[in-house]
Amino acid sequence: MNKPFNDVFLKACRKEETPYVPVWYMRQAGRYQPEYRKLRREHSFFEMSENPEICVEITRLPVEQLGVDAAILFADIMTPVKHLGIDVAIFPGIGPMITNPIRTEADIHRLGELDPVAHIPTVLEAVRILNQQLSVPLIGFAGGPFTLASYMIEGQSSKNHHKTKGLMYAHPKAWQVLMEKLADMTLTYLKAQIRAGAHAVKVFDSWVGSLSDVDFRTYVAPTMRVIFDELQKMGVPTIYFGIGAGHLLAEWNKLPVSVIGLDWRTSIRSVRAQGINKVLQGNMDPSLLLGPWELIEERAKQVLDQGMERAGYIFNLGHGIFPEVQVDVLKKLTHFVHQYTTIPEVWG
Amino acid sequence: MNKPFNDVFLKACRKEETPYVPVWYMRQAGRYQPEYRKLRREHSFFEMSENPEICVEITRLPVEQLGVDAAILFADIMTPVKHLGIDVAIFPGIGPMITNPIRTEADIHRLGELDPVAHIPTVLEAVRILNQQLSVPLIGFAGGPFTLASYMIEGQSSKNHHKTKGLMYAHPKAWQVLMEKLADMTLTYLKAQIRAGAHAVKVFDSWVGSLSDVDFRTYVAPTMRVIFDELQKMGVPTIYFGIGAGHLLAEWNKLPVSVIGLDWRTSIRSVRAQGINKVLQGNMDPSLLLGPWELIEERAKQVLDQGMERAGYIFNLGHGIFPEVQVDVLKKLTHFVHQYTTIPEVWG
Repeated sequence: MNKPFNDVFLKACRKEETPYVPVWYMRQAGRYQPEYRKLRREHSFFEMSENPEICVEITRLPVEQLGVDAAILFADIMTPVKHLGIDVAIFPGIGPMITNPIRTEADIHRLGELDPVAHIPTVLEAVRILNQQLSVPLIGFAGGPFTLASYMIEGQSSKNHHKTKGLMYAHPKAWQVLMEKLADMTLTYLKAQIRAGAHAVKVFDSWVGSLSDVDFRTYVAPTMRVIFDELQKMGVPTIYFGIGAGHLLAEWNKLPVSVIGLDWRTSIRSVRAQGINKVLQGNMDPSLLLGPWELIEERAKQVLDQGMERAGYIFNLGHGIFPEVQVDVLKKLTHFVHQYTTIPEVWG
Repeated sequence: MNKPFNDVFLKACRKEETPYVPVWYMRQAGRYQPEYRKLRREHSFFEMSENPEICVEITRLPVEQLGVDAAILFADIMTPVKHLGIDVAIFPGIGPMITNPIRTEADIHRLGELDPVAHIPTVLEAVRILNQQLSVPLIGFAGGPFTLASYMIEGQSSKNHHKTKGLMYAHPKAWQVLMEKLADMTLTYLKAQIRAGAHAVKVFDSWVGSLSDVDFRTYVAPTMRVIFDELQKMGVPTIYFGIGAGHLLAEWNKLPVSVIGLDWRTSIRSVRAQGINKVLQGNMDPSLLLGPWELIEERAKQVLDQGMERAGYIFNLGHGIFPEVQVDVLKKLTHFVHQYTTIPEVWG
């Protein structure tokens, strides 16, 4: 418990020099772990994430098991949304399902507000315990407003987000109200996590990449600016991540966010060549973890070589770890990233 | 029946000057049409596409109803795959489902070859009739090898293509055999369509955008080069389209393909600014068709203004028309595109 605090991840978030490239993995607590699967058989997702003891155990496990440089709070993006009057359940392999999706403007106006003390005391308790116990930074997290809105309107994961975009296009004022309510909720939620001890926060915007650049600029960017402006005042690094959002990076680069998380599609070099000057996080295709080790090592080297070309780089996968991945492969990969990127100490 | 042949689409494909911007829509024959829905209630997808009379009727309908400048053969990307020994059925709203997906290398070696005369006489008969009847060009089409492989391996539409990529990474030689077989099939299929009277052909590669740029270059680009090299010899324009494939456009630009179809994510201006110099087709978000007409018109203008900045541009949506879209909105949009982009004749 008394290991010195490992701040390599936080240094990278601030573009400071680091002794090696820090690494953590999206969904590093998940079904690929036998321990997780065992707990998941006995509890619903929300039972796990809202029981401080289990939440702490699950959040800590990958740090100890894999040797990663950061922990991420075990929670779901829908965790706070439940408390606004939206009935959510999480199903393995399906994701959130909502029994009372938003169908009318009145549904938007009816949404409640998040009260951290009343609604998420167990989540904050877990954050406090983790802050005490962990020897690596804890990343808090929340869903992006567009993604949350899509779940709330479609009622579940959607391929085309037609209902969501339909509302956005046809009822821009109602959309604006929804975005404001979700920005308020997100800020309340993330500020509470930071006050309880999160060292950085990530906004996970799974579906935002389904918007064209002009739609992102018109309907979502103002909300993201409010969120990152406010978070910046809290003095902790912020991360913004989306899937298939390569066409939005020029817009993201204008936001007051510290780190841009990249999915696996675009090479880091081509992202920087576009003039993106944020700290970058990513971006090996997690599917590669199903390949032979030689290929994993070759591709990890490619990603690391590109990442290390400039200061401010964090290794990660380009998407979450999935159930078929072997724990040992991730251990080996973590070790490889550390070993390959360590600057040898010079004895003088 | 004796209307003069409208070659505006073909001229645009060859970067020639056109009197206005030609327009057609992906999935312009589909469930948004009451006539289609009626037929679909009575027939399976393959019954419709493999009955020359119904196929001709469905392919012609949007040309007459909407006034578009090209017809696209009514078929599914899985049409030829069935004849290789893969059992496929198409379910509305789900897509292809395969009961005997590829699971081993032996399954790949067991795949048969497409024999146009024996396997697709009705499809070719429909092409011949359409060539006689239509006063606009007929676009033939086929699925992209990566997309077909994904369906054949996963057994259905997949979010992450893990099984497909797993095979690709772990068994690159078997993958290569599969790609070669699918390239052969695609060429046989498209050449037969061209010989029967298709004026242009489109390779629809729905899922190829799920590959990173390096994976596309390594595992798919050589196959696409063979396909487009061979098609080029047939002397008809070729179109390549994928969803979320913006990160692959630099690779696509190197292929001997005539037209790149863009999804809705990236603006045409930013694509050209990357140095992409092919004819472009696209790319309004089809979800916009759920919005008010003023917004549709505003966005269509934006897309058209950018498209017309250079020769070689075809208006389309960035994805297929979906069932909730109103026929009248598409009629109005088609008329608007023609009217807004018509170069006024000068009387002298």
